Amino acid sequence: MGLNVAQKIIKNHIVKGEMVAGQEIAIKIDQTLTQDSTGTMAYLQFEALGIDKVKTKRSVAYIDHNILQSGPENADDHLYIQTVAKKHGIYFSKPGNGICHQVNLERFGVPGDTLLGSDSHTPTGGGIGMLAIGAGGLDVAVAMGGGEYYINMPKIVKVNLKGKLKEWISAKDIILELLRRLTVKGGVGRIFEYCGEGVKTLSVPQRATITNMGAELGATTSIFPSDELTYEFLKAQGREEDFIELKADDDAVYDEEVELDLSQLEPIVACPHSPDNVVAVSFLKDIKVDQVCIGSCTNSSYADMMKVAKILEGKTVNEKVSLVIAPGSKQVLNMLAKNGALAAMIAAGARILESACGPCIGMGQSPATDAVSLRTFNRNFEGRSGTTSAKVYIVSPEIAAASALTGYITDPRELREAFDIEMPKDFLINDNLIVPPAADGEKVEVVRGPNIKPFPKAKALENEVTGKVLTKVGDNITTDHIMPSNAKLLPYRSNIPYLSEYCLTPSDKDFPRKAKENNGGFIVGGSNYGQGSSREHAALAPLYLGIKAVLAKSFARIHMANLINNGIMPLVFKNLEDYDKIDILDELLIENAVEQVGTGVIIVRNKSKNEEYQMILNITDRQKDMIKAGGLLNMSKANN
Amino acid sequence: MGLNVAQKIIKNHIVKGEMVAGQEIAIKIDQTLTQDSTGTMAYLQFEALGIDKVKTKRSVAYIDHNILQSGPENADDHLYIQTVAKKHGIYFSKPGNGICHQVNLERFGVPGDTLLGSDSHTPTGGGIGMLAIGAGGLDVAVAMGGGEYYINMPKIVKVNLKGKLKEWISAKDIILELLRRLTVKGGVGRIFEYCGEGVKTLSVPQRATITNMGAELGATTSIFPSDELTYEFLKAQGREEDFIELKADDDAVYDEEVELDLSQLEPIVACPHSPDNVVAVSFLKDIKVDQVCIGSCTNSSYADMMKVAKILEGKTVNEKVSLVIAPGSKQVLNMLAKNGALAAMIAAGARILESACGPCIGMGQSPATDAVSLRTFNRNFEGRSGTTSAKVYIVSPEIAAASALTGYITDPRELREAFDIEMPKDFLINDNLIVPPAADGEKVEVVRGPNIKPFPKAKALENEVTGKVLTKVGDNITTDHIMPSNAKLLPYRSNIPYLSEYCLTPSDKDFPRKAKENNGGFIVGGSNYGQGSSREHAALAPLYLGIKAVLAKSFARIHMANLINNGIMPLVFKNLEDYDKIDILDELLIENAVEQVGTGVIIVRNKSKNEEYQMILNITDRQKDMIKAGGLLNMSKANN
Repeated sequence: MGLNVAQKIIKNHIVKGEMVAGQEIAIKIDQTLTQDSTGTMAYLQFEALGIDKVKTKRSVAYIDHNILQSGPENADDHLYIQTVAKKHGIYFSKPGNGICHQVNLERFGVPGDTLLGSDSHTPTGGGIGMLAIGAGGLDVAVAMGGGEYYINMPKIVKVNLKGKLKEWISAKDIILELLRRLTVKGGVGRIFEYCGEGVKTLSVPQRATITNMGAELGATTSIFPSDELTYEFLKAQGREEDFIELKADDDAVYDEEVELDLSQLEPIVACPHSPDNVVAVSFLKDIKVDQVCIGSCTNSSYADMMKVAKILEGKTVNEKVSLVIAPGSKQVLNMLAKNGALAAMIAAGARILESACGPCIGMGQSPATDAVSLRTFNRNFEGRSGTTSAKVYIVSPEIAAASALTGYITDPRELREAFDIEMPKDFLINDNLIVPPAADGEKVEVVRGPNIKPFPKAKALENEVTGKVLTKVGDNITTDHIMPSNAKLLPYRSNIPYLSEYCLTPSDKDFPRKAKENNGGFIVGGSNYGQGSSREHAALAPLYLGIKAVLAKSFARIHMANLINNGIMPLVFKNLEDYDKIDILDELLIENAVEQVGTGVIIVRNKSKNEEYQMILNITDRQKDMIKAGGLLNMSKANN
Repeated sequence: MGLNVAQKIIKNHIVKGEMVAGQEIAIKIDQTLTQDSTGTMAYLQFEALGIDKVKTKRSVAYIDHNILQSGPENADDHLYIQTVAKKHGIYFSKPGNGICHQVNLERFGVPGDTLLGSDSHTPTGGGIGMLAIGAGGLDVAVAMGGGEYYINMPKIVKVNLKGKLKEWISAKDIILELLRRLTVKGGVGRIFEYCGEGVKTLSVPQRATITNMGAELGATTSIFPSDELTYEFLKAQGREEDFIELKADDDAVYDEEVELDLSQLEPIVACPHSPDNVVAVSFLKDIKVDQVCIGSCTNSSYADMMKVAKILEGKTVNEKVSLVIAPGSKQVLNMLAKNGALAAMIAAGARILESACGPCIGMGQSPATDAVSLRTFNRNFEGRSGTTSAKVYIVSPEIAAASALTGYITDPRELREAFDIEMPKDFLINDNLIVPPAADGEKVEVVRGPNIKPFPKAKALENEVTGKVLTKVGDNITTDHIMPSNAKLLPYRSNIPYLSEYCLTPSDKDFPRKAKENNGGFIVGGSNYGQGSSREHAALAPLYLGIKAVLAKSFARIHMANLINNGIMPLVFKNLEDYDKIDILDELLIENAVEQVGTGVIIVRNKSKNEEYQMILNITDRQKDMIKAGGLLNMSKANN
């Protein structure tokens, strides 16, 4: 039986388990990437492993999130990451060098390799045929240390692309159409593998736009074959030696299939407040636009920017529109500055921002109250822009640029004739903002600013686990409740003691105080506890506050994994009505904890009420070992 | 008797008083400018005057301070200013168009005109022979309404420039040398007028660097004659019709004289934490540099940027240095993007920021803890960078660029041979980010975001003024104590109710609560009360909280004027020991207040202690009228 591209890469990297959808497998990781908002913690965790030098083929630390630098915390983090990277065999991409996914594609990505990145848009690398997966910082730290990455084998979805895009239709329209059809949950537990005749009509940056926003489908990752266009892209980057061909066998089998006729697509837009809330641009044409933002890891390539420049050239941005453009990398910015395209953008009235995530992560350029903001980004969740009342539409660069000129949401076909942008035969190659690791890391001193605090480490499970119930919360508590993340708190991602002062405070403002006064204890939650982002800090802050277990009606998958990774037991009520019996400050006790964890059923004794509750611990044996060892880090250290 | 340049302009504009140093004069204002952090309040005050259209020759509203936009407040302010400007006959410079002083020089400044700007670096306009003065927003609002500007006639200092700068010596070295000699207090009550053979060796941007940093001398303003170079500059800006020649009469008389031989200057640097802490660059050459910032209203002209580009061209920024460059205006940025200079900067590894104040006002790019930051800016006060422990050095663009390459504070003469930068014969003229006022302002709707709150208005003085002492503070209370201003509070400059929650809290955290509970009352202060910035908000917040008078041992001059402008009585203890007799929450009473204000001696009765204190109100008759009328705005309205 033939293999598809994803299976071929997994087969080349599998260490444990079998390629059966839903079963846990472990794969070897070739490359890692981090960005700075998750990176500081990942490197602190890597340091805790006690390994001198990363064991990956390539590891790169990028600075692209916290670059506004309103206070010393950001620059301190940059310096920490720069020095820790240099010491331990990691390439460091300085602030200004660009967005991790764009730069990785340009300068580091290798078809057929596995890439684990501490950012949810890591699947961008699938655009050049990498198996590129986003994960928590701890997973990335373990991978840097040579540890395998565990995942349930996803279903492989064949996305059969037919035909060719019409003029003015873009890669963004392809992924938005998939989002329209499949919704933001449609990709969960799946890898989207693109194939069919349409593939060869899409350039690498177009492919990368699609794999990038596969994350919005909830997919594990997305991947394109590595073909002649991939070769040409790598050759233009001076990296033809990194090329290998990768295509699905003719008799490859897929778990599911989707067909998409590119020639049928029209310009479409994701409306507020979800990337799958997609309608045709023609439905929106009377909507007045206040702001247009072009860039982000989704649409900031050279070709995207050249298209925008050509639309703007000789024109003027509408008086009532603020147009901001952030080219995705120094390479892109430098090429635009050389060939006159940047001058054309500036002349038209664009505000040029640094090559970084910027407004896509709410770092600056928050629109006015109630404003309409068109963005070429990947997410338009309510409030993500920094302005709760803003209405953010996700659009292609073509729609964005056209609308910036007219002041209304505009179908670019109404504005002008189509034109072609040639992919460059040679990108401008100048890696002088990438600092290579030291030949001899031993001599490098790691600089730790005052904001970089040691992170909490779990201890091996004690046989008697006891403590008070510190808080009791309702259903659907998100990671934003557990560990708020906003422009004010984001600079403190390397300072868990500080962050923990805000832990769960949106639900219970006294939680941190109670946790400290009682030397930690238990959290009681409702159903779907920990939904939302993959934020590891939502486990680290409770760990710092001494939380031993969370008792809930049910858990969101990723938060549950993060709790386990940090040695906190996620216990599910067998009888949901037990939830009602527990009160805050009740004293709980788990006897014979180590043995009970092994069985998967745990009796929690409520000493205050003289009651017992049956709790379920439905996790893998590996995860049970992790709970016993006191988290992934302790387990990984033991295995070194 | 002949006149100097400053006297000629003043004579052309004087409305009241005589040109005798120290005497109050009133002058007519031709032009105004505002920036956005002071502008929202200035326009709210202008609106309160009830005038349809500004009565100045040119008024321009710039957006250059709050452009990071971490939340909707900034964009809301931009929109308010854009619409209020359009309605009332004011040009609006959109965000991205550049720093007010740079753009004003390029596109609006006129030799021989008076310019009043709500920014302390307004004297930059002196570089083209304007009499350009920084003032509070209320003064600017009144000037927009056609009201005269009151000032004590300054002493005129002749700065006689001899000789010619050597290679690699810059305008920055001239003004730093004056700061070294005269200190940051040396210019108080003075206008610095540059003359002598050296003047004709200095381009307009060089002159503007010098007049800009005249503010650091504490000067009222600084001015150069308007000569052939001024003509060439204006002609290259397509504005030769704005030129008039302006030079001092041969027999002009000055109050004081300073002589400076340009040929004797060496590269010099202002060390932390004051612009007058000046030493030769050679003394600093072993100091390691972490950050270099180039730009600000002081050194962001085309010529400055071209020098920097040429130094950076083909080189790479030191691995350990973060170099950020913010060209001063869209015109400059666009020219650099067209001629390849921007590409050279980017290639060398510079981070390019928006054309705005940025790091100079602590808006972003805060250095790491304890870092050394070289900046071409005008101020290096402790903490202004956003990093209290940072060591900020003020340098020329040449030293900045050279040091970015080496990683150490570097004398550029050691790096390479000198080169010339030609002033352009034609600047790139494209004003499409400047929105002209509406032909018919009546139809324009002013947009007020939720953060823009009505500002407090004083009422006419009541004859019986009574209330409690709400707080009692010590000596040297600064405007930072009275109304803190930081990255967190700066977006709320148009929201006095919000800001007032922080009023005086660094000295007395309960002050806002006490003021509200008691319906306002009195503040008791020590000596030098209100020292520091010219911040009008340090009077507006107390006004909002119902403060009727401040009783102090002495007042700082500008804050005292701001209190009077807002109808709050600044009363000085005749007997300093009376300060000790008053306690918080004592009940005070001023009877026959209107009559007593007229006499300049006011009896304050302490009803709680059954005592009386003699207070002095040492202000001009005009100011007494202002107190009676309830502030400048009420008085100006009455005069309309």
